[in-house]
Amino acid sequence: MLEPEQIKEFFKNDKLAAYLGIELLEVGEGFAVSKMKIEEEHLNGINTVHGGAIFTLADFTFAVASNSHGVVTVAINVNISFMKAAFKGGTLTATAQEVTINPKLGTYTVNVTDDNGDLIAIFQGMAYRKRDKIKI
Amino acid sequence: MLEPEQIKEFFKNDKLAAYLGIELLEVGEGFAVSKMKIEEEHLNGINTVHGGAIFTLADFTFAVASNSHGVVTVAINVNISFMKAAFKGGTLTATAQEVTINPKLGTYTVNVTDDNGDLIAIFQGMAYRKRDKIKI
Amino acid sequence: MLEPEQIKEFFKNDKLAAYLGIELLEVGEGFAVSKMKIEEEHLNGINTVHGGAIFTLADFTFAVASNSHGVVTVAINVNISFMKAAFKGGTLTATAQEVTINPKLGTYTVNVTDDNGDLIAIFQGMAYRKRDKIKI
Amino acid sequence: MLEPEQIKEFFKNDKLAAYLGIELLEVGEGFAVSKMKIEEEHLNGINTVHGGAIFTLADFTFAVASNSHGVVTVAINVNISFMKAAFKGGTLTATAQEVTINPKLGTYTVNVTDDNGDLIAIFQGMAYRKRDKIKI
Repeated sequence: MLEPEQIKEFFKNDKLAAYLGIELLEVGEGFAVSKMKIEEEHLNGINTVHGGAIFTLADFTFAVASNSHGVVTVAINVNISFMKAAFKGGTLTATAQEVTINPKLGTYTVNVTDDNGDLIAIFQGMAYRKRDKIKI
Repeated sequence: MLEPEQIKEFFKNDKLAAYLGIELLEVGEGFAVSKMKIEEEHLNGINTVHGGAIFTLADFTFAVASNSHGVVTVAINVNISFMKAAFKGGTLTATAQEVTINPKLGTYTVNVTDDNGDLIAIFQGMAYRKRDKIKI
Repeated sequence: MLEPEQIKEFFKNDKLAAYLGIELLEVGEGFAVSKMKIEEEHLNGINTVHGGAIFTLADFTFAVASNSHGVVTVAINVNISFMKAAFKGGTLTATAQEVTINPKLGTYTVNVTDDNGDLIAIFQGMAYRKRDKIKI
Repeated sequence: MLEPEQIKEFFKNDKLAAYLGIELLEVGEGFAVSKMKIEEEHLNGINTVHGGAIFTLADFTFAVASNSHGVVTVAINVNISFMKAAFKGGTLTATAQEVTINPKLGTYTVNVTDDNGDLIAIFQGMAYRKRDKIKI
């Protein structure tokens, strides 16, 4: 595994995460936490948070957790269920946890919660592990 | 159903789609097509298009198709499989098609393709239809 | 909610569960546990447990948990990830837990484990709640 | 690719498919069709076809299509949406079609239809391709 600080440094290169104001808070082995303050640009046409913004927050956190072992790992499948709407001014937090891993595949659960700790979305992701090590 | 022009007008309110440069091309009953030119801000840390950008394009197109009947409809579950990487400078096109619909639920398939017509991602979405009509 | 014994009685009518030897062990509000001893008829062509048998065990347990409130509830979407093979002679256990619920929809996670407690599959199910009460 | 007759022969070893009366009708490269006449043992507690029976039919057909290239291939993730109930006496047909394939992963869509051609379920499956060839 890379050092948490190395992982954080590496993920500063994620342009979409930066563009949406996503902040990486914690990294561990197979684990990550990020947050996103809800701004105007995260909203859909009915003024709730866009599914795409929720997905991006969860997907970014999943990417950090799945790449934390230092092997280049890419998402191949995601299932996301949306439970509750969220609104401008609040903050969403995504917590990604590795469920199982083998040399080729890893499975991760990401919970996205609002300021009350209510579940906004559940994300189940499957990632494929390449042969390459992450180059810092 | 609303007129295609009314739907297009309504979806100009989607802030995230606008922020990411997503353009709605076509709307029909249970059908929609959008595109997104890949810019720097759509990329992840390894310079391929971020899953969150692909998802947002597909999710927006799904929202247009599922709201095309004039009833407020929200995403409850999405499954997305990522097949192929895409890069800056190309354009992604999402085509959403209704598969089945009943008074409460609709199911949609969205294909995301690149400039060669290769499949970048397949998105299967389920939407819940509320009682309210869309107000234009 | 119905009494756990009423729910157990009601689910004795599940013909496929009976045909596959699935046994309901526990029922609570939004919660259920079942098991299935792996027999010859549960196998696929390469002598591991068939995905269909694992799914049926998980789906049955999900149905019990989601119907435990006494309202007729039907599966609308399931995502299942398969992690590890299982073999004849072992026993699989499925544990279903409600994640969120509202008047129309419920979301459930089902873990399927083997005799070592290893995760064989993760199942995420979404159910639609009808207006009818379960008739015992 | 193996000959269609070889594939059909190989899948006669699928015990669960045989136990549920599933019949393989057609095999092609990345393609398969099967059917299942709905019997008493396929039903759930409310006398509609059990999700587990529908899933098994679709999963078997997916397995045939994904193994049709002659390489041992296993399911890693499935998303299934249930659209419509089906009843005893009818026949369900599953049609599996390869969507994309690379050396390690394949993606398949399976439609399950009833006697009227109505869609009962849509199944999207992802399979992992091992190094081993199928031994006939």
